[in-house]
Amino acid sequence: MAALLPVQLIRKKRDGGALDDAEIRAFVAGVTDGTIPDYQAAAMMMAIFFRGLDGRELATWADAMTRSGDVIDLGAIARAKIDKHSTGGVGDKISIPLAPAVAACGVAVPMVSGRGLGHTGGTLDKLESIPGFRVDLPVARFAELVGSLGTCMIGQTARIAPADKKLYALRDVTATVESLPMIASSIMSKKLAEGIDGLVLDCKVGRGAFVKTIERARELCALIRAIGARAGKRVTCVLTDMDAPIGRTIGNALEIRESIEVLRGGGPADTRELVGVLGAEMLMLGGVARDPDDARARIERALGDGSALAVFRKVVEAQGGDPRVCDSPGSVLPRATTRDELALRPGRIVAIDSEALGIAAVVLGAGRRVKEDAIDPAAGLVIDAYLGELIAPGAAPQIVMHHDLPVGDPRLAEARALIEGAFAIEPADSPVVPPRSSRILEVLR
Amino acid sequence: MAALLPVQLIRKKRDGGALDDAEIRAFVAGVTDGTIPDYQAAAMMMAIFFRGLDGRELATWADAMTRSGDVIDLGAIARAKIDKHSTGGVGDKISIPLAPAVAACGVAVPMVSGRGLGHTGGTLDKLESIPGFRVDLPVARFAELVGSLGTCMIGQTARIAPADKKLYALRDVTATVESLPMIASSIMSKKLAEGIDGLVLDCKVGRGAFVKTIERARELCALIRAIGARAGKRVTCVLTDMDAPIGRTIGNALEIRESIEVLRGGGPADTRELVGVLGAEMLMLGGVARDPDDARARIERALGDGSALAVFRKVVEAQGGDPRVCDSPGSVLPRATTRDELALRPGRIVAIDSEALGIAAVVLGAGRRVKEDAIDPAAGLVIDAYLGELIAPGAAPQIVMHHDLPVGDPRLAEARALIEGAFAIEPADSPVVPPRSSRILEVLR
Repeated sequence: MAALLPVQLIRKKRDGGALDDAEIRAFVAGVTDGTIPDYQAAAMMMAIFFRGLDGRELATWADAMTRSGDVIDLGAIARAKIDKHSTGGVGDKISIPLAPAVAACGVAVPMVSGRGLGHTGGTLDKLESIPGFRVDLPVARFAELVGSLGTCMIGQTARIAPADKKLYALRDVTATVESLPMIASSIMSKKLAEGIDGLVLDCKVGRGAFVKTIERARELCALIRAIGARAGKRVTCVLTDMDAPIGRTIGNALEIRESIEVLRGGGPADTRELVGVLGAEMLMLGGVARDPDDARARIERALGDGSALAVFRKVVEAQGGDPRVCDSPGSVLPRATTRDELALRPGRIVAIDSEALGIAAVVLGAGRRVKEDAIDPAAGLVIDAYLGELIAPGAAPQIVMHHDLPVGDPRLAEARALIEGAFAIEPADSPVVPPRSSRILEVLR
Repeated sequence: MAALLPVQLIRKKRDGGALDDAEIRAFVAGVTDGTIPDYQAAAMMMAIFFRGLDGRELATWADAMTRSGDVIDLGAIARAKIDKHSTGGVGDKISIPLAPAVAACGVAVPMVSGRGLGHTGGTLDKLESIPGFRVDLPVARFAELVGSLGTCMIGQTARIAPADKKLYALRDVTATVESLPMIASSIMSKKLAEGIDGLVLDCKVGRGAFVKTIERARELCALIRAIGARAGKRVTCVLTDMDAPIGRTIGNALEIRESIEVLRGGGPADTRELVGVLGAEMLMLGGVARDPDDARARIERALGDGSALAVFRKVVEAQGGDPRVCDSPGSVLPRATTRDELALRPGRIVAIDSEALGIAAVVLGAGRRVKEDAIDPAAGLVIDAYLGELIAPGAAPQIVMHHDLPVGDPRLAEARALIEGAFAIEPADSPVVPPRSSRILEVLR
């Protein structure tokens, strides 16, 4: 039988049919080489939004996207190669202390990261706030550094999963981003191209995440794990709470500084917990720890004894950055000209809208509203207000806005309004809703 | 509140929301002027395929498409102006005898028709098989001829419902043609731009039509009538059987010849019935007949007394065609060089696949596989085999293929196979399923 035309494939999916492997590969290849125009790809994305993909279709779709470009060969590295991926949070700097800590424990971490868009930040933007740091290393150099240092952190090159790159841009403007099979295949196509043996997925759940409920997070994780299983890769999913920003900082240089605190054995409790738990799961997948407790203890030790920081220092140096950032981040990292303080009204903080805080940081210059925007590495927020906290009358300001905007710039008022609106504050004597003591909701091994 | 971005409108519809009037008008305007790219329009079409449009959305969408171009002003014509539209059948030449017959009875018929695509033919292609006939008259000349002759038959100009033109082309390649609200608004946007007072819709139902079931036909008719009602136009829908081709011919010049037989008071019974019933409904809408019987009798009279043919002769002449076609069609119309006969195997014909026969005619050159294809006006099929007919052993061939293809051209074998497969033939002694005596299934006034 003759091959079906693209329009026939769209119709088949639209009507709830399953595409066969050859059809999926032909469609993804057509998207990659441009013979299938954007309008047909857009119609297919919307049909998939409504009809989904079954397990076999999904695995083939992810594999076809992986093979649309180069697959990095890390076969020369003897150690287990395990990566972590986060679905995107506010203040999510976890990769930066995590990769060196895991590498210090003997598991290689080949990390290909993304940039921030919308209210969630990106690891690449954060790393680039370190003067000189380059994220555009050639693949050969990346493989070499993963081998010699245990980790390296670069950006997605044009040759890694180009089909995903095209479809991702298209989904963003056609209201098809929220399709779980497309999210799962997008994540896995890039990760499978890294040459990994296994993956820990940090699936963010809550108001600040694009996955709002635990049910939907479980669905996404099941899809990701199914793709992994069919590709012969082990995937552990950790569902974590995104009902408040991670750590106390949002913004690129500010988050590097906080990451270095963690690498020096300090830092906010939630950030340390995430590094510990995610790192432990990576060590488990990499086969270097007996059990989760042993694994977690090894990560804590690497953070406490300076070995994780030593790896980070070498990575910064190898990637062109100024390694003195590890010793005196305050003098090496860019600093904003202005720090405006903001005090919350008295009462008990019963909810925090992380997304609004993420957007406030973007407004101050820490992120991009559209892809073409430049970012201000020094801009962002430092937040000293926790869920459940009681703000006393006359307390010191809890929020500091770091920025380089002129006095009277309307963006300052916009950011201020977003921040004030982000905190739901009840009278001090209202019933206390105890905050979660841990961000970890579930671990799916 | 700021206007929503196109991507937000797509998301709203995707999630089952209703677009407000301003949002619909902005989207249709953006499609028309190109500021909304094809991929966003395609995503919206697919979202509408799944979510539909409610009555108010649908009327606004159709109105926005109508107003995307010129609305013809026929206000100077005193007579009622009623058009007929068919959803597309195989061998559907009804408009050609119908418009002159209705005009001869005193109702003006401003007819803007389409071209054939796929297995269904188009009135414009049929008319152009008359040497010299032009379908691209300026709108002013069209209005003048509708006024003076009672009818004129032209093609959709670039200025009639350009939004529909763009969306139709896009739907065709993105598997969103079959969306009932989009079909309804597409039909009505063009018809409302003609300056009509009312419309008779011939909704084809069955294997040869894109509407396969009577339930779906009723749904489509309800949408069309709702759009008409909100635009202040009366719409009568006639549901007609498309389980066999209309008349005995498929192909452009062949169908003109059959149309002239009808205009001369003859022609196949089913074709005459459709002209009579649809014409009667047009006269009723136009207010020139007391009741359906009276109206039908008037149409029959116009076909019998030569007055319908006289109108057609004037239309052909006014539109640049050779009016002698009315007297000696066989010598004026193009004729194929080859006529290949085909005999069906003996037995009783229990089903006819009109779509397969329509495709066979296309394969012989009568239609287009893609928009750019040229057509052979002489090519087509003459079919002397009816549903329920008993084919005796040794009977004369029932099908004649008219074509200009060279001997041995693979398209001949393809057409032959399609034709043979189109007739389901049971043993002569199998129980008889009596064929329908009428093609009219329902009239919705």
